[in-house]
Parts: sequence; structure tokens; C-alpha cells
Amino acid sequence: MTVSDDPLRVGVLGYRFMGEAHSNALARLPMFFPDAPAVERHTLVGRDEEALAAAADRLGFARTATDWEAAIDDVDVFYNLGPNHLHAEPSIAALESDTPVLCEKPLARTLDEAEGMRDAAADTDAVAACAFNYRFVPAIRYAKRLIDDGELGDIRQVRGRYLQDWLADPDEPWSWRNDEELAGSGALGDLGAHTVDLARFLVGDRAGEVTRVSGQLRTFTDERPLDDDDGTRAVTVDDAYSAQVAYENGATGTFEASRVTEGHKNDHSIAVHGTDGSVTFSLERLNELEVLTGDDRGYETVLVTDQDDPYVDHWWPPGHVLGWEHTFVHENYEFLSAVAEGREFSPSFADAYEVQRVLDAVERSDERGEWVTLDR
Amino acid sequence: MTVSDDPLRVGVLGYRFMGEAHSNALARLPMFFPDAPAVERHTLVGRDEEALAAAADRLGFARTATDWEAAIDDVDVFYNLGPNHLHAEPSIAALESDTPVLCEKPLARTLDEAEGMRDAAADTDAVAACAFNYRFVPAIRYAKRLIDDGELGDIRQVRGRYLQDWLADPDEPWSWRNDEELAGSGALGDLGAHTVDLARFLVGDRAGEVTRVSGQLRTFTDERPLDDDDGTRAVTVDDAYSAQVAYENGATGTFEASRVTEGHKNDHSIAVHGTDGSVTFSLERLNELEVLTGDDRGYETVLVTDQDDPYVDHWWPPGHVLGWEHTFVHENYEFLSAVAEGREFSPSFADAYEVQRVLDAVERSDERGEWVTLDR
Amino acid sequence: MTVSDDPLRVGVLGYRFMGEAHSNALARLPMFFPDAPAVERHTLVGRDEEALAAAADRLGFARTATDWEAAIDDVDVFYNLGPNHLHAEPSIAALESDTPVLCEKPLARTLDEAEGMRDAAADTDAVAACAFNYRFVPAIRYAKRLIDDGELGDIRQVRGRYLQDWLADPDEPWSWRNDEELAGSGALGDLGAHTVDLARFLVGDRAGEVTRVSGQLRTFTDERPLDDDDGTRAVTVDDAYSAQVAYENGATGTFEASRVTEGHKNDHSIAVHGTDGSVTFSLERLNELEVLTGDDRGYETVLVTDQDDPYVDHWWPPGHVLGWEHTFVHENYEFLSAVAEGREFSPSFADAYEVQRVLDAVERSDERGEWVTLDR
Amino acid sequence: MTVSDDPLRVGVLGYRFMGEAHSNALARLPMFFPDAPAVERHTLVGRDEEALAAAADRLGFARTATDWEAAIDDVDVFYNLGPNHLHAEPSIAALESDTPVLCEKPLARTLDEAEGMRDAAADTDAVAACAFNYRFVPAIRYAKRLIDDGELGDIRQVRGRYLQDWLADPDEPWSWRNDEELAGSGALGDLGAHTVDLARFLVGDRAGEVTRVSGQLRTFTDERPLDDDDGTRAVTVDDAYSAQVAYENGATGTFEASRVTEGHKNDHSIAVHGTDGSVTFSLERLNELEVLTGDDRGYETVLVTDQDDPYVDHWWPPGHVLGWEHTFVHENYEFLSAVAEGREFSPSFADAYEVQRVLDAVERSDERGEWVTLDR
Repeated sequence: MTVSDDPLRVGVLGYRFMGEAHSNALARLPMFFPDAPAVERHTLVGRDEEALAAAADRLGFARTATDWEAAIDDVDVFYNLGPNHLHAEPSIAALESDTPVLCEKPLARTLDEAEGMRDAAADTDAVAACAFNYRFVPAIRYAKRLIDDGELGDIRQVRGRYLQDWLADPDEPWSWRNDEELAGSGALGDLGAHTVDLARFLVGDRAGEVTRVSGQLRTFTDERPLDDDDGTRAVTVDDAYSAQVAYENGATGTFEASRVTEGHKNDHSIAVHGTDGSVTFSLERLNELEVLTGDDRGYETVLVTDQDDPYVDHWWPPGHVLGWEHTFVHENYEFLSAVAEGREFSPSFADAYEVQRVLDAVERSDERGEWVTLDR
Repeated sequence: MTVSDDPLRVGVLGYRFMGEAHSNALARLPMFFPDAPAVERHTLVGRDEEALAAAADRLGFARTATDWEAAIDDVDVFYNLGPNHLHAEPSIAALESDTPVLCEKPLARTLDEAEGMRDAAADTDAVAACAFNYRFVPAIRYAKRLIDDGELGDIRQVRGRYLQDWLADPDEPWSWRNDEELAGSGALGDLGAHTVDLARFLVGDRAGEVTRVSGQLRTFTDERPLDDDDGTRAVTVDDAYSAQVAYENGATGTFEASRVTEGHKNDHSIAVHGTDGSVTFSLERLNELEVLTGDDRGYETVLVTDQDDPYVDHWWPPGHVLGWEHTFVHENYEFLSAVAEGREFSPSFADAYEVQRVLDAVERSDERGEWVTLDR
Repeated sequence: MTVSDDPLRVGVLGYRFMGEAHSNALARLPMFFPDAPAVERHTLVGRDEEALAAAADRLGFARTATDWEAAIDDVDVFYNLGPNHLHAEPSIAALESDTPVLCEKPLARTLDEAEGMRDAAADTDAVAACAFNYRFVPAIRYAKRLIDDGELGDIRQVRGRYLQDWLADPDEPWSWRNDEELAGSGALGDLGAHTVDLARFLVGDRAGEVTRVSGQLRTFTDERPLDDDDGTRAVTVDDAYSAQVAYENGATGTFEASRVTEGHKNDHSIAVHGTDGSVTFSLERLNELEVLTGDDRGYETVLVTDQDDPYVDHWWPPGHVLGWEHTFVHENYEFLSAVAEGREFSPSFADAYEVQRVLDAVERSDERGEWVTLDR
Repeated sequence: MTVSDDPLRVGVLGYRFMGEAHSNALARLPMFFPDAPAVERHTLVGRDEEALAAAADRLGFARTATDWEAAIDDVDVFYNLGPNHLHAEPSIAALESDTPVLCEKPLARTLDEAEGMRDAAADTDAVAACAFNYRFVPAIRYAKRLIDDGELGDIRQVRGRYLQDWLADPDEPWSWRNDEELAGSGALGDLGAHTVDLARFLVGDRAGEVTRVSGQLRTFTDERPLDDDDGTRAVTVDDAYSAQVAYENGATGTFEASRVTEGHKNDHSIAVHGTDGSVTFSLERLNELEVLTGDDRGYETVLVTDQDDPYVDHWWPPGHVLGWEHTFVHENYEFLSAVAEGREFSPSFADAYEVQRVLDAVERSDERGEWVTLDR
């Protein structure tokens, strides 16, 4: 890729949920982040030509392609938004041609696969980014600011959970997300990756990396009906996981995720407690941060929508709340700016590999019945 | 205007807060509401040519104009997003040329002015819409559905309040919103209009119109510093108001708004209580509705983000929350669809006139020291 | 009454809800408030001898009486916990014999009756107390402390509401609380008296008295079934009221109460907003106070259970929450201490008379269709 | 002990926090639970004669004793409310003389000690009760009722945490609770015992016992200042623990407690999720239960204060909330009734032993770096 005044030609693999979320983000940048690099939604990549054409039309792409290899050659930036089993090969191919990559999370199905991706990223100057979008919630950035400024003191405890209910019903149909071959793992990789990354983002600079892991996985429904068939197919991933961790500085953490928890739709919550204060966050109320610092007697419910809050000056006046999708706008802004300016970007593939180490340790702990130590 | 396959040419007066909110809405329709009429952001109207040109560039308008009369002639639809003192004349002019109008709230500065607008709307088949965007919150639509379905039984009580804090500081500079000549009223018209309309939307079909009003206005800060000057200027509108009302069916209501309430940024809350249930809503948590119906022992906190919730199928999976700006997308979708299809649209100028009658009664009650009866 | 080392002989009129609440409070003083005056639960007064005897046995009274006049002669302190129509005559009789009185709220059925009670209190040195127990919630005392210390700055707004649901069902039987002759008014006197007093307690020293009132009453169910009969009896009091007020310093207030609001059992909430901060309280979470002061960006949820919080050092460690009944223990402690030490006590009959003036103005405003001015 | 009409003579070891909580409970029974056995607060046992005498006077005991062995001989029921190192010996002695025992939690310092106590209980018909008072919160009983009735379906997940902050400050003085010899463990035994028991109470009948445990302990402050001395003393217990468990039916659980978590005073929270619903509870709002069952779209906030809610008919009308101390009244009522009627009581020493097995497994998992399996 050569930096020029031409718009960055973006190729996107995947046109469903994540394809829509990122396309929307790209479309919104000019109005709200006018200093973002100009972008052309160039090629949309997928397999089903009819659905692909319809998606390209709606999402604003001029071209479609069913061959991701060719598509990568035609674009300046490659978004890999496919299912997990398609993360490694196309992402590595793009990086081998020095094309910047934004790959959805989790980075890979397995630690081995993630290692290959991390290594490919190490061999190029192209930006290799993993799309942990919750790092870009204003309230999370604000929490990070408080932690970095020492407002919480030394970090002692982290608690993260990500609860959903969409698989609570055993009659919910089978999808690729229930298959180890296609997805790697279940709630662990899909949801747990977010939590482990978010915790690392928030406390990593002060508490260090995870050094020790104990984990538990559980599959409550062993097979699920097929959508277009009378039969069923085996569920080969977890419906839920939990984990305990220790950090280099001695802090402890507890993590948990589930796709079968009645009463919780997209409840990604994280709490950080230090010697001098605490913060707690919940994704279903993503404009709010509960903050206890200084002389506070209880948590303050801070609506993180003031003009000097992270990213908020790009949007609306105080109290005019943002939604889930805004995290993608911020993420795309940061990623594309890094690409255009030749800057480093975080979370990188190396960051995502560290997350994958923890996920892998959770699985090993569950299988081996032991605490797993991560060398640092 | 002639219905055709060509995009609707939209002219927009006003390029600040509301101009941005509506321009964003227009820009997002094709991706998320593909059945919306095609729209061309045609002409942006304002006075300051330099700022206007910059705004047009960012907001995606091909043309600018400083003369709203000429602009109205060039477009198919006219958005009047200017300050309140500019609502009547351009809106009436547009309607007189049978150009559909979407006018920001409150409809007018005074009841007389509102009457003129209502009458102009009555003389044309063009859609005359008032932009009470909170009618288009999914949770509010869901509440309306519950009320219409009789889940709350007979309506007995309504409680609405709209609390902000941006004028709590007496050193906050003077703006047109502090001036009776330019704005008509203060918190009453700016915020109270929303509440009165929202209450009417929710309970009007079951409880009827407001029949009796008692009101109180208060200005806590009599003058404010000028932004670009050493001097101050008088505040000639209210900082806060409260009101009690009765409805045709005997239900009662209490309303309140303030720009000086510490701890509340954009807290527009409304509660409706009936013989069989209750709902409560707060704008700062706009994805949620508190619902008590049937055998419920307490309020359910319903996250109104399921696929069969109003408008939600256009957006993201359950639990992936929407923001304030989405109300404008829904509003523009409904308005433009009504324009294209020659359908009626609500809230209309006639609806907004009913709101203005209540606001006017609040002021009269305060001045005269009496309850004011509204003939029905 | 002569102060002596002997226990204060307490006579109590009324042995139902309030009789039990106060008897419990008296019984708990020695263990938790050992410096409280010694008390003898001396005589329990009522009409139904059998029920009375059983109650006396359970509530710890050695004697019963059906003649309150005689009972007053036998005791050092008189608790008037009867229905509202029995407040005036026995209380005045006790005061005329210089016997201290603790009378339940509302002070009286009418302003005239309240005036007589206030005057009787003015003619004796005996303590004449009205049992507004919510003044004795630790969180309310803590709020009062913050307001008195100027943490909220100048008071601008008060908002109080007291919502219950026990009369939501039109088949709920008739009781004396539905009868004007016996109760004076309905939600207004029963619940609104609490709110008006609590607001006055919190802001009176800074905002002054109420100067202007607008009110509305509503009866939704006109007759109710009799408990022991096939017939019905007319409801001659309000099911709900609302009011707007102004204070001497220009602050405004809105009040509301209801016995028919689905979803609210005993929801007495009050909010006070000043130039520098805000507090909000809700009785159903009575250990908590929402506080915004100083540099707070949002409300702090303060659990008012620390050792230096009002009354808390008498009870349990931080976080071990108190209940509704503890307000009566604190109230009895303060009242009896005032009696024993010959000190003034607040809320007095004079305080309660001021409350009654506001209640009376609410009724007059509703009847006359005008704002009512209270001379100061 | 012989059942008779005479009051049960109760001897109580310990006169501080727990001594006061139980003495208060005993004192309140006659008024609110008139069918409870009559009780005489007979002998208060302690070491410091002066403090003991003052406590006995205030708490209503006629006698004091410094020798618990002698005291046991004089009473019908023995309450062991001393520090943990005094749980085993006096409790066993009482049971050996067939005297019913109510012993504070955790049952013992170690599993061995607990085993001895369990065995002593097995050898007598006297009631041997462990004072897990949170089983007696009305909202918890109500949750248990829902779970037993199958409203939550099959149990899949349990989440418990007990967060306090009183040791967050490293300068908080040393006490016996920081010493392994005196307390056994720290947050694990003091707080975790409550959580493990409460989870077992709620889900044990449906999910079975814990079969597998992974645990982590952490001491953040290694030594603490002595109260009456310039020196410090080592902290030999945990400040915090976390654990993961599996139940016989395949359900999973995560537990956590801490004495060093800023922002949480006495935050004992528990959530239970099943195939058909969820409940969540928090001790700081102990009158509430969040319930999702049947067709609920979100959690209902149920105020568990209705007349048909557990224990509530003994107290006040709906919405008149109870406090922490009421759990002791209910617990004493059930315990004393079981004693008087010769019935079984739960939680028994055998129940508490099962809790201790889990606590012990947490410690072993942490030490050995492995998951610990509990034979069933």
C-alpha cells in the first residue's frame, strides 16, 4: 500500500452482522470524523453471489468478489469479518502482501492458528488489527483514563462477565457458532475473548499480564435442530465458561460468559477495583460508568457524554446517548488513521494473541483439572 | 411536489444541532431503511455563508442558500430546523406552495403563531409535520402498543419531567434560547413541548385531551453574560416550569422541566399508570422500558431491542443498544414515507397546535393565578 | 408531669398498625438507646375490650382502658395513635392537663381542627409532637445535614411523591380512611402530609415556608364494598392529589400522592435540587441517599449506614441495613428525651399546623380553580 | 433438656456484634412471633467481667459467667457466638450433654474441626444449628419457593459474591479475624461460608451438592497495626477468595468474596439461572428480589413485603421494609421452635459441614494448583 491522496480502497470479507456494522461505520466517518482518511467501500467478498450483490448494493460497495485472494490484491485495506475458521488464511495472505488487516475477534480458533497470525503480523509493517470494539466505548476509554491516572490506586481485582440468552432454548437452531471446527470455541471465544481483552486493556498497564488460569467450560445442550432440515447436529463448543486468573502484580480476576442465561441479552459487564477506588461498566447501559474515587462514599453514576469525554465531541450534546454501533465508528476511525499515518494500532494481532493464550489456558485447565501457568 | 421516481430533493434550514441530527438521519436511511424514499440532500439554508459552506460539505449538501424563500422553490421537501422565531414564516410559505414541511419543535413561539401554522397546514394536502422525535423511540412505541392493547387498563395518571443542567451555572452565556422574542419560552417550550406531546401520544387515544391546566414558571437567573462581549443580556424566558393537568377521561397529569437541575443531563422521563398496569421510561436509558402488567409483582426492566420491537428489525440483534440519534432516523423514515405515499403523518401541525394550547395555558395559569380550562 | 427517676408512664390510644409500631419502638429503646428515659408501657386505650386485651398482652401493656379521658389522668405521656377524627379532642385534653402528647399524622382532619390543637399546645409547656416519622430516617437526616451545610447551595426545586397501590382495585373494601368525616382527606392527608412535612424539614431553613399553592384532587373509585356486608359505602376522600408550590426564597416544588398507582407499594420519594447539588431519596430503599455535590459528575449512591451517620452508631456495622420501623425508634427516642429534659421537640403541633395549611390550600385551589396564596 | 411450660433458659457465649444481634432477636419474639417458645435470657458468657456485666445489663441477661462449661450446665439452650476458635469445644461439650446449640458461622476453623462437630451432633437428638442467617431473609425464602416450584426450570448457573471494604485500608488495625489460628480463614470462612451455604440452600435440592472446586485466595496486606501498640502483627488469612464449582446435575457456580473492595459495604449478592428463569438478590437491598420467570421479558423488581411473603405477615404492611436484623428474629424463631417441638432444623451442623468441605477444597485447590474433586 502506498499512502496517497486517493481514498483507501477497502475490501470486506463478510456481509452479515459484522459486515453491516463496519460498513455503517465507514459510511459515517466523513460526517462525524472529517479528519479520518477518505475511504472507498471497494469490494465486498462472499460466497452466495445473489445475497452478496444485494448486500453490496445496500452497504455501498461498488464491486463484489467470491475469491478473497483476488480481492485482497485489488484493495488497500482488508477487513476480515468472516466466521472464525476464515480468520487465519485470508488475514495471513493479506499481511504477506503488506495489506493492512482488520480482523474480527476472536483472532483464531486455536492458539496455534493465532500464533501463525501473530507471526505474519510481525513480518510486515502493515497494521494488523483485531476488532475488539468494546475498547472504543467512551465510558471504557474514560475508565481507562481514570485507571492510568492512578485514580483507582493499585489494581487488586477485576470481574468480567458477558451474559446472553439466545441459546437458552434447546430448540434454537444449530449454527456455525456451535461448531468447534468452524468457531474454535463457543461462549469462550465469542464472548470471553471480549472480556479478557477488555480487562487487559483496562488494567494491563498497571497489573501486568495474566500469569495463572483456572477454567471451566460447560455445554448444556448437546445437539440442536438444523434450520432447513428435520435433523439435528452436534454442538461441539461450550455454552458457557468461567475462569479465575492472577495478574503479574498479584491482582486477581474472575471471568464468565454464557449464551444461556435467561434475563441477559448482551450484558457485558466489567468491574475493576483498586486500593483507592472502583469502576463498573455494563454494555446494556453503555453510556454510563459507575465510578468511586477519592472521597466518594458510593459509586457515582457518570453519564459519559460530556464534550471532553472520549470521542463525544464528535457527536451530540451532553445526555444525548450513543449506541452500540458507535463503537465501530470509533474503532474504524482509529484503525484507518493508523493505516494512513503509518502508526501502530492497538489492539493488534500481538494483543489478540495474548488474549488467545488466556482462552487456551481456560480450556486446558478444564481438561487437565489443574491451574495453568502462563510463562511471562 | 409531484411524486416521481426521482429522489426527493430536501432543503434544510439550519445546520447546527438539529441540522446535523436530521442530515445524519437522511444519510443513514438507504442502508437501514432501504424501502424509504430516495432522498437528495439538496440545499442547506443559513445566513453565515462561510459556516454554511463548511456545513454543507460535511453534511452532504450539494448547494447552499441564504434566502429560504428561493430555496423552498427549488426543493420537494422543506425541513425547518431554525430557531423558534423562524418556524412560522418559512413553514407557512412552504405550505402555501404545497411543499411538505418538517418543522422542529416547539411549533411556534406563541399560540397565535401556532394557529397560523396549523391553518396553513389545513389549506394544503402537503404533509406538515412537527419533529417531536421522542415519539420514535422504540421503547416509547412499545409502550404505546401496550397502552393501545389495553394492558394498562384505563389511564389514571401521567407523570412527565424533563431535567437538564446546562443553565445551572449563572455564568453560562446568554443564547437565543434565553430570549422570549426569539424562543417564545424557555424550558416550557423547549422541553415541556416534548413532554406534553409524548404524554398526548401515549395516552391521548384512551384518556382524551387535556381539559384543565395549572402552571408555574420560574426564572432563576435574570441575566447572563454575552459570549463575545463584556456585557450581559436579560433572560426573558423561564429556566423551569411545572404543571398539573386533567384529561377528558378524568386522568390527571403532572409535568415539569428544568434547565437548571444539577445531576440530570437529558433526563426526559415519563410514567403512565392505569387501572391494570404501569410503564415508566427515561431518555438517558432509552433502550429500556419499565413495565408492570398482568400478574407482575414489580416493574420488569424490558430491554426493547428484540427483533419484533418497533423499528428494531432494521438494526442490530437483541441487546445491541441504539442511541438518541436513531429516533431521527425513524422519524425521517416515517415522514418521508408519508410524503412519498401521500399519507397522513403524525405528529402534524394540528397535533403540535394542541401541544401549544397546553403550553399557553401553563403560562396563563401562572400569570393569572388560576386554573385554566381548555374548551373541548 | 413531674420529671423524676421513675419510668415515664406511657398511655397509648390505638393498638393497630401505629400502636404496634410505637410499642415496638418503646420496647427497643433500652437495648439500643440506653440513655433514653425509662418508660413503662402503662395503659393501652381502645374500644373493643377483647381485641384490646389481646393487644395489650402482646404489646407489653399492663393495663387497658376504654375511656381515654381517664387514661390520660393516669399517665405521664400520651400517645394519640387513633384514627384522624380522634386526634383533636384527646390531644387537646391531654395538653390541657399539661401531659405531653405524641400525635400521629396528619395532625387533624381540617385546618380549623389543627388550629385548635396548635393553640392548645401553645398554652402549655408540655411537649406536643406530631409523629412525622420520616424525619428520623438516617438518610433523611444526612440529607438535612448536607443541605444545612450548604452542600447543595441555594435551594431551587423540591419534588416529592408518595405512591401506593392498595386502593388500585375498586373491590378493595371501604375503611375509615375512605371517609371524609373520619379521615379529613385521603391520599392528601395520609400521604401528602408526610411529603409536605419532609420537604419543609429539609428545605425550610433555607427556602422558607410555602407561599403559594395550586392543587388537584381526584377520586377514581366512588364507592367501595363493605367488609362485613353485601352493600357498599361512598368514598368521600381523594384517591390521589397533586400540587405545585412556591417557597419564600423563590424555589418551586411539586408534590403528588396516590393510593392507586400500580407498581408502587410505599414509594415515598423526595428530591431536592440546589445551585450546587442535588439529593434524592426513596423510602423503599431507605438506607440509600443519592447525592450529587461538589465535583461529582453523577449521583453517588450513598449507603447511609456508617458509624458517623445519624443514629447509626446505635445499631449495626456499615452495610447492615435498617428497616422502616427503626424510624419509630429514633422518633420515640427524641420525643421522650425532649419530654424528660423539658426540651423543645420538632415536629411540633405548630410544625404540623404549617403542614395542614398547605394541605388545606391544595383543597381550596382544587375547589376554587385558583392558585392559593398563604400569608407569611 | 426437658420440654416444659417453663421458658427456655438461653445461655449465650459472646456479647459483641453477634451477641447483640441474637439478644435483640430473642427480645423481639414475643411481640411479633407470639407462638414462639417462651425464652429467658439466662446467662451471658464472656471473659472481661466488667464489659460482660455491662452487656448483660443492656442485653437483658440476669446472670453472667466466665466459665462456659458451667454455664452450659445451667441452661436449656446454648448459643455459641464466640470467635471461630471457640466454636468447636463448647459446642461439642453442649451437645455431649444433649443441650441444643446454635453456633455462629463458619462452623469451624478447619474441616477436621468441623467433622468433630458434625459427629457430636450426630450422637445426640439435641438440635445442632449453624447460624447462616441469610437463609431467613424473606426475599431469599421467596426465591427458594420459586426454585422449588420449578419456576426457574433446571438450574444451570449460580453466581455468588460477598464484597466488603473494611480492610481496604492497610492501616485498618489487626483483629482476630486476620489470624488463621483464631479464625481459620479470612474472607473465605467469614463471607464465603455464607455464600456457599446460601447457594446450597437455594439450589441444593435441584442441582445436588458441589462435586468439583477450583479456588484462589489472596492476601493483599501482609501485616496490620495493633490497636493498642506501636507494632504490627502478621495477617495470616486471606483478604479475598474466588472459586468455581460444579454441581451434581452439571450446573456451574462462581463464588467470590473480599474485604478490600472499595464501594461495597456488605454486598452479598447471589444469582441463580435456570432453563426457564433467573433470580438475583443483593443484601444491601434485602427487601427486593429480581425475578424473571414465565413470559417476563426482563427482571421484575419484586418488593418481597407482601402479607403472603415468607415471615412478612408477622411484621408490617406491604412496602414497609425490613432490615438486616430481622433475619435473626426469623432464625431464632425457627431454631427455638425446632428445639421446643423436637423437630429437625436446617441449617444443621451436618449442613454446615458440607459448606466447610467446599471451603476446604477452595484452599486445597489454591495450594495444590489443581481442581479438587469432592466425593459424593
